[in-house]
Amino acid sequence: MTNDKHSVSLDDARRILAAGEAKANAIGQPMNLAVVDAGGNLVAHIRMDGAWIGSIDISINKAFTARAFNLSTKSLAQSAQPGEQYYGIHVSNGGRIMIFAGGIPLQRDGQIVGAVGVSGGSGEQDQAVAEAAVAAF
Amino acid sequence: MTNDKHSVSLDDARRILAAGEAKANAIGQPMNLAVVDAGGNLVAHIRMDGAWIGSIDISINKAFTARAFNLSTKSLAQSAQPGEQYYGIHVSNGGRIMIFAGGIPLQRDGQIVGAVGVSGGSGEQDQAVAEAAVAAF
Amino acid sequence: MTNDKHSVSLDDARRILAAGEAKANAIGQPMNLAVVDAGGNLVAHIRMDGAWIGSIDISINKAFTARAFNLSTKSLAQSAQPGEQYYGIHVSNGGRIMIFAGGIPLQRDGQIVGAVGVSGGSGEQDQAVAEAAVAAF
Amino acid sequence: MTNDKHSVSLDDARRILAAGEAKANAIGQPMNLAVVDAGGNLVAHIRMDGAWIGSIDISINKAFTARAFNLSTKSLAQSAQPGEQYYGIHVSNGGRIMIFAGGIPLQRDGQIVGAVGVSGGSGEQDQAVAEAAVAAF
Repeated sequence: MTNDKHSVSLDDARRILAAGEAKANAIGQPMNLAVVDAGGNLVAHIRMDGAWIGSIDISINKAFTARAFNLSTKSLAQSAQPGEQYYGIHVSNGGRIMIFAGGIPLQRDGQIVGAVGVSGGSGEQDQAVAEAAVAAF
Repeated sequence: MTNDKHSVSLDDARRILAAGEAKANAIGQPMNLAVVDAGGNLVAHIRMDGAWIGSIDISINKAFTARAFNLSTKSLAQSAQPGEQYYGIHVSNGGRIMIFAGGIPLQRDGQIVGAVGVSGGSGEQDQAVAEAAVAAF
Repeated sequence: MTNDKHSVSLDDARRILAAGEAKANAIGQPMNLAVVDAGGNLVAHIRMDGAWIGSIDISINKAFTARAFNLSTKSLAQSAQPGEQYYGIHVSNGGRIMIFAGGIPLQRDGQIVGAVGVSGGSGEQDQAVAEAAVAAF
Repeated sequence: MTNDKHSVSLDDARRILAAGEAKANAIGQPMNLAVVDAGGNLVAHIRMDGAWIGSIDISINKAFTARAFNLSTKSLAQSAQPGEQYYGIHVSNGGRIMIFAGGIPLQRDGQIVGAVGVSGGSGEQDQAVAEAAVAAF
């Protein structure tokens, strides 16, 4: 990745993760948080003390998914249900597509340049933390 | 690879992809498009500027799926729903089976000799582009 | 991906592939050729008639490798031999790291913005075709 | 996850990563750095601006390897060469075993409680950065 205004720098990622972590602390739920760049590649990840180890992969891949399709995984969740138009998408891309809330794209100047992924609590909690993280971008 | 009338040549694939690309441009939705041969192996792939990176894998595997079972992935979508006879097929073949619209077999002289896969928009858009692509064969 | 001057457009990829294909025809060896963007994600792939089906994956992953480490896979081949400093790197990244000639980064304005991968002949042939492809960027 | 003195907390990981990052800056080579806990599971990862995207996976798995066998990957490199007693170990564990320098266990009170992994430069550079990181624990 180019590490310029068209993507997400490590400094950007730290600011984003810090905001998400603060929100996770505020709601009292330890989380895994991850940031990917415009190419869908990991920039940074943290697992808060006590957060689920099964959520390491999920947080990273929620971020990947949000960038891979330029949408929130929360909205993908709806269209990926049985009977809906993207049902089955969750097995594509080598199992990296996460179809539940917590992944949100990062935009700059109207362009999607990366994404955030959060996992460790309920869908509502993951989404709330991801939204707080994105707001810091 | 037979590279004769029993399969799909690179020239065939280019004609097919060009027709699909024209349709994608006409509907204003950038797409990933792929063509596989009689062996289910990739002949050519293009990702139009701005198309989802998560759809690279999906387009190639929609084409694979259409040739693997000699049917459109749109029709497979129906029989692969929960409760239907092929439910669960999407985890077979190492995650290469795509069960939503956009993959269509290529026929010549009544024989299936390859397939097209399209991903990048709604199920309807993917299907429309795949149909335009197949029509050029 | 941003699809601007910081990466590789589909038009760029077509020009690159056409130059490589011309070279492959000139030396009489059918090839698989692939182009990835700055994020390491596939932009386009072609398999020339008669080229090895085992080289589909190799061409795509030579391109990925060249971008993943910003070097030619030919030079990586040396440092990845037994006893050398990167021996064992070929099993990383899920088996996507190719450690033999045929993958070359694409540079623009002194920045690496993607890569080309070629597979289908001897190491020398793959390298020659990749060099011809890169020269068209 | 124990999250006590028997493992590595996120605060520990941050201190370790910061020390490694400082060293990487001092030698002028951007790196990927990762910390895993006593269970071999990721606690935190950073990719410095401009560091190789192919090294994301490698840094995480060097750390995993160092904890998986309680040794430095530099020493494993020797016993994993052709003809040596662990030759072939690099394909075990689903491709997660890295057999070149840059992964070092983290010890506390004589017990191994996690590990650091660094990737992004020469073997010597990776090792130097990993050593600086470990020293901060």
